[in-house]
Amino acid sequence: MVVSLWEFPIFENLMKQMKKSPLILICNDDGYKARGIRELTRVAQSFGEVVVVAPVSGQSGMSHAVTLNHPIRYKTVSVDGEVPAYACTGTPADCVKLALNRILDRKPDLVLAGINHGSNASVSLFYSGTVAAVIEACFNGITAAAFSVDDHDPETDLHTAVQNIPSVIRYLLKQGLPDGTCLNVNFPKGAPEDFKGMKVCRQTIGVWKEEFDQRIDPHGRTYYWLTGAFSNEEPEEDDTDEWALEHHYGAIVPVKIDLTDRVTLEEMKRYGL
Amino acid sequence: MVVSLWEFPIFENLMKQMKKSPLILICNDDGYKARGIRELTRVAQSFGEVVVVAPVSGQSGMSHAVTLNHPIRYKTVSVDGEVPAYACTGTPADCVKLALNRILDRKPDLVLAGINHGSNASVSLFYSGTVAAVIEACFNGITAAAFSVDDHDPETDLHTAVQNIPSVIRYLLKQGLPDGTCLNVNFPKGAPEDFKGMKVCRQTIGVWKEEFDQRIDPHGRTYYWLTGAFSNEEPEEDDTDEWALEHHYGAIVPVKIDLTDRVTLEEMKRYGL
Repeated sequence: MVVSLWEFPIFENLMKQMKKSPLILICNDDGYKARGIRELTRVAQSFGEVVVVAPVSGQSGMSHAVTLNHPIRYKTVSVDGEVPAYACTGTPADCVKLALNRILDRKPDLVLAGINHGSNASVSLFYSGTVAAVIEACFNGITAAAFSVDDHDPETDLHTAVQNIPSVIRYLLKQGLPDGTCLNVNFPKGAPEDFKGMKVCRQTIGVWKEEFDQRIDPHGRTYYWLTGAFSNEEPEEDDTDEWALEHHYGAIVPVKIDLTDRVTLEEMKRYGL
Repeated sequence: MVVSLWEFPIFENLMKQMKKSPLILICNDDGYKARGIRELTRVAQSFGEVVVVAPVSGQSGMSHAVTLNHPIRYKTVSVDGEVPAYACTGTPADCVKLALNRILDRKPDLVLAGINHGSNASVSLFYSGTVAAVIEACFNGITAAAFSVDDHDPETDLHTAVQNIPSVIRYLLKQGLPDGTCLNVNFPKGAPEDFKGMKVCRQTIGVWKEEFDQRIDPHGRTYYWLTGAFSNEEPEEDDTDEWALEHHYGAIVPVKIDLTDRVTLEEMKRYGL
């Protein structure tokens, strides 16, 4: 099966010409040179004016970290031809802050992050710089979605993601999202032939079971590498993002930035603490 | 008003002697030398066996970052006399992972983080390494609470926090928390005379309005410092953590680690995306 990456409905390009183009900011945590952000940039260009502001190098596992103890810099780079692109020495959250406050001349209509090389499903969303970029946009009242592929191989097949991201962007531009909600979208590993479609899911309950790999450096001192394996605590639940990925579906999780547990709140109030 | 930091009910010490002591792991993001973690360590000792595993130096704003690209080390240090204490070169989340997998000989009954110098209310919980330590514990099924004081001054008055943390610990040891929920507790700035009591709250909707301070280095190159001010988007809402702090209350927010927005999930399903 030969799939062109550019089989998008013609109406997006018409829409783009008929009214002021949406401004789309693109970020990631793998750095501006990653394949994933280049593919996302190309996809997004069918929907509006695109600007890329991404880390100068890999920032995986940086979560929502912000750079407070040293200054940051940025420079213009090339990601995809004429798309304005900037590489920033900071974290993904720094990139979004810098874009909104220094680089862009107006508030973007959409912030997209990714395509991340590696799943950000379940609790991995907490560790993810890609998801953090989108949460940062959400703080600022901007519709936003993070895209990831469940494969760390930098040469992984991105066709499934590239073919299905447009329907998510179309939804976001047409329907928007409620204030305080953004999307965490994960695609399964594998070729488009195996892909079963998109599912709207909940975040899986899971945990990374860590192993620290203990080694001795050439000076006789002990050091540790963090390694681990994800443990799905509810593998049978078919409404979860991990189940979707395992069964060759793309998983869309609407993510709230209000973390309040209202049930426990009421219980604690009744207790009188 | 002279307040002793050690006016705790005698029954905790009795409980401690009568049965196996709870194991309490303490972490923070200001580093093991900070005043806040020393005070928290002293408070916690009335409730069980305490072990400190904290960053070797400040890790503010590191969120839930984990150290993937270089190894980490740890060493024994002194925090409060005979309490076993370890300083780790990693992030707060690394500290908790290291403690659970390498340092402790059994799963702790409680993980406490702080006392953080600076508020972690509203969206600041996303940037906070202190809250991340507690969320990491929550992933691992451990009852956990983060404590912060709404003042960055390292010499701030910690009496209000020190006097009120015991009631929270007592609640946690007696009642526990539902799976997937931890606590984010913030105390107001100021002396105990001004303190009005504890309130169980929801997370305030707010955003950091950033300003990038642009400077030129001695080599003629531009660099930027991230600065900003918190903007409370709902200052009149008296059920929020920011309102509580502003009105001299301590704010307890039960925090969920499942970020799924279930209302939007159902809407998106109906839409058929």
